[in-house]
Amino acid sequence: MVKQNNYCVIMAGGIGSRFWPMSRTSFPKQFHDILGTGNTLIQMTYKRFRRVCPAENILVVTNEKYRSLVLEQLPDLQSDQVLCEPYMRNTAPCIAYANFKIEPRNAQARIIVAPSDHLVTDETAFVETINIALAEASDADNLVTLGIKPHRPDTGYGYIQFEEKENAANPNIKQVKTFTEKPDIDLANKFLASGDFYWNSGIFIWSIESIQAAFAAHLSDVFNLFAEERAAFNTPNEAAAIESIYLACDNISIDYGVMEKAKNVSVVLSDFGWSDLGTWGSLYDHLPLDLHNNGVVGEKTMLYNCTNNVVYSSDDKLVVLDGMNGFILVDTKDALLVCKKNDEQKIKKFVHDIKMSKLDDFI
Amino acid sequence: MVKQNNYCVIMAGGIGSRFWPMSRTSFPKQFHDILGTGNTLIQMTYKRFRRVCPAENILVVTNEKYRSLVLEQLPDLQSDQVLCEPYMRNTAPCIAYANFKIEPRNAQARIIVAPSDHLVTDETAFVETINIALAEASDADNLVTLGIKPHRPDTGYGYIQFEEKENAANPNIKQVKTFTEKPDIDLANKFLASGDFYWNSGIFIWSIESIQAAFAAHLSDVFNLFAEERAAFNTPNEAAAIESIYLACDNISIDYGVMEKAKNVSVVLSDFGWSDLGTWGSLYDHLPLDLHNNGVVGEKTMLYNCTNNVVYSSDDKLVVLDGMNGFILVDTKDALLVCKKNDEQKIKKFVHDIKMSKLDDFI
Repeated sequence: MVKQNNYCVIMAGGIGSRFWPMSRTSFPKQFHDILGTGNTLIQMTYKRFRRVCPAENILVVTNEKYRSLVLEQLPDLQSDQVLCEPYMRNTAPCIAYANFKIEPRNAQARIIVAPSDHLVTDETAFVETINIALAEASDADNLVTLGIKPHRPDTGYGYIQFEEKENAANPNIKQVKTFTEKPDIDLANKFLASGDFYWNSGIFIWSIESIQAAFAAHLSDVFNLFAEERAAFNTPNEAAAIESIYLACDNISIDYGVMEKAKNVSVVLSDFGWSDLGTWGSLYDHLPLDLHNNGVVGEKTMLYNCTNNVVYSSDDKLVVLDGMNGFILVDTKDALLVCKKNDEQKIKKFVHDIKMSKLDDFI
Repeated sequence: MVKQNNYCVIMAGGIGSRFWPMSRTSFPKQFHDILGTGNTLIQMTYKRFRRVCPAENILVVTNEKYRSLVLEQLPDLQSDQVLCEPYMRNTAPCIAYANFKIEPRNAQARIIVAPSDHLVTDETAFVETINIALAEASDADNLVTLGIKPHRPDTGYGYIQFEEKENAANPNIKQVKTFTEKPDIDLANKFLASGDFYWNSGIFIWSIESIQAAFAAHLSDVFNLFAEERAAFNTPNEAAAIESIYLACDNISIDYGVMEKAKNVSVVLSDFGWSDLGTWGSLYDHLPLDLHNNGVVGEKTMLYNCTNNVVYSSDDKLVVLDGMNGFILVDTKDALLVCKKNDEQKIKKFVHDIKMSKLDDFI
């Protein structure tokens, strides 16, 4: 495989409202060092993909308002590697935009599409998996997705069911049977027991030819909007073209619009310490814990008689906690959240209530 | 009585460490609007005493580092009405300093001495009580203190036991039998049941003649240090004199040094909605409570499923709390405390630990 043909599209337009008040419309989750490692999530994602792609082949798709944040946090990127969406339209238009940028540059392109805010703890296994997927995407006209071996009956993830039939090239490559929505706990337990359901990581690998064909077949409205403006991409007319495309474009996910409809979908069964870090609870699962099972980000935190909490503050703030059990505590400059860990699904309601209280500056 | 002879000495040198992290060495409790009323405690104290004293007869004794805070919060004060102590030496030297300032100005002075950080909810009753005490201090060579009718067996206050004998002038004036230290709960219950123990408010009223005589008799070391520098007061030499007096002076309270030793001590039995606001718990007792018994200071606080908390933050900060019961939560710009309400005596330990961690900037 020619590494020069490997492209990566990092999707970085989300606002991560389940991580309020750390994640804010003006400074979303992917731009935070939420694990306290010294790197933000998008920086970790970028570094991971530098192991499989040349720097100039990495594109970031984001909202116009995050352009300067992206360039600041990923200083190796050239300005034309940051694709700005004028409106949020979910993942399908985002991917279509990248496709039409890449297609005229390299007709042999193989593209990895990934969210900017996921966690991978075993990078070596990750790179091996990506290489298997890239080979699969090159060799066959397949849309490849990564399935993550489930370790628990998680109700926060979608699942991928695969055919049992062995693939000649690699036993870890399977044909996809169905994509499922997030299950309830009973169904999640059944999925886990059956052995042929893996978590849907939302990471995709395909050749430019295969994904363009799939869009043309399954999302022709979206495809045609972009195709009509084909000549504008990589020219000074691109921004105006994108503005008019996005105004007209449906809000639709790649899963719903393409993956669930296409027949040529395969999954690489994977296990590389993945989390979508979708909630404070999932962050807690990846923080080092103290003797009393507290996960703490923030240098100046003093805990007394506290157990099972996740505590997140800036290194400048002194945080003294006594007698707290099972809480999420997040302190930012202008907002403080304290919430029971098993009530974290309420955070979306809190954010909604804040909006209703005309306190939009805090979201 | 000639109002022109009434003086007030407001003691404002304390650091209020039980109110950490709101109360800080650089900005102690008395300078905060801790009830969210729009006035700081020292401003409320000053306004209360303006009803019995001319403005020019009100002195504030404080530490040199709080001089500008006092002048800022009490802009009617002239610079020479703020007496600055170079070191903390407890209440006896503080009162002696004020005495030697007032004595040469007015030999007929009657002085009210009061802490700057107490709460009074019934100002009319307070003024009536002060006038009774001023009359008593004028008519007899008595050191007068205000006793507060106890409403509960509080173990956080000292108590004053008084003689049952009626006073001819006013049945609410009694001779003091003993001052007691803070009792344990059993003793506090006995005090409450007996009816002849009142809370020691730490507010005193006396003539300049009586208090100087009492100092000379019972705290002659302190008295002599000041008396030797008598000529320096109200002159440019005062600061240097005070520096050398305070270097040599014992750290001693007026209660221990004078009141407990003197025989000519009377108490005015009072009931004017008093609290020393000594702890977050006592603040809680004076905050308006919501339907779930939460006392909140801070405009942007949203509570979900919270009961019996005291929540204190700045009006700028958005605070969202869920599932908290019986906590003290105090958020300041650089420090956050969450502590069980019935663990509040631990706050002194937290402050000690912070000091030991070389985080003095946060105290």
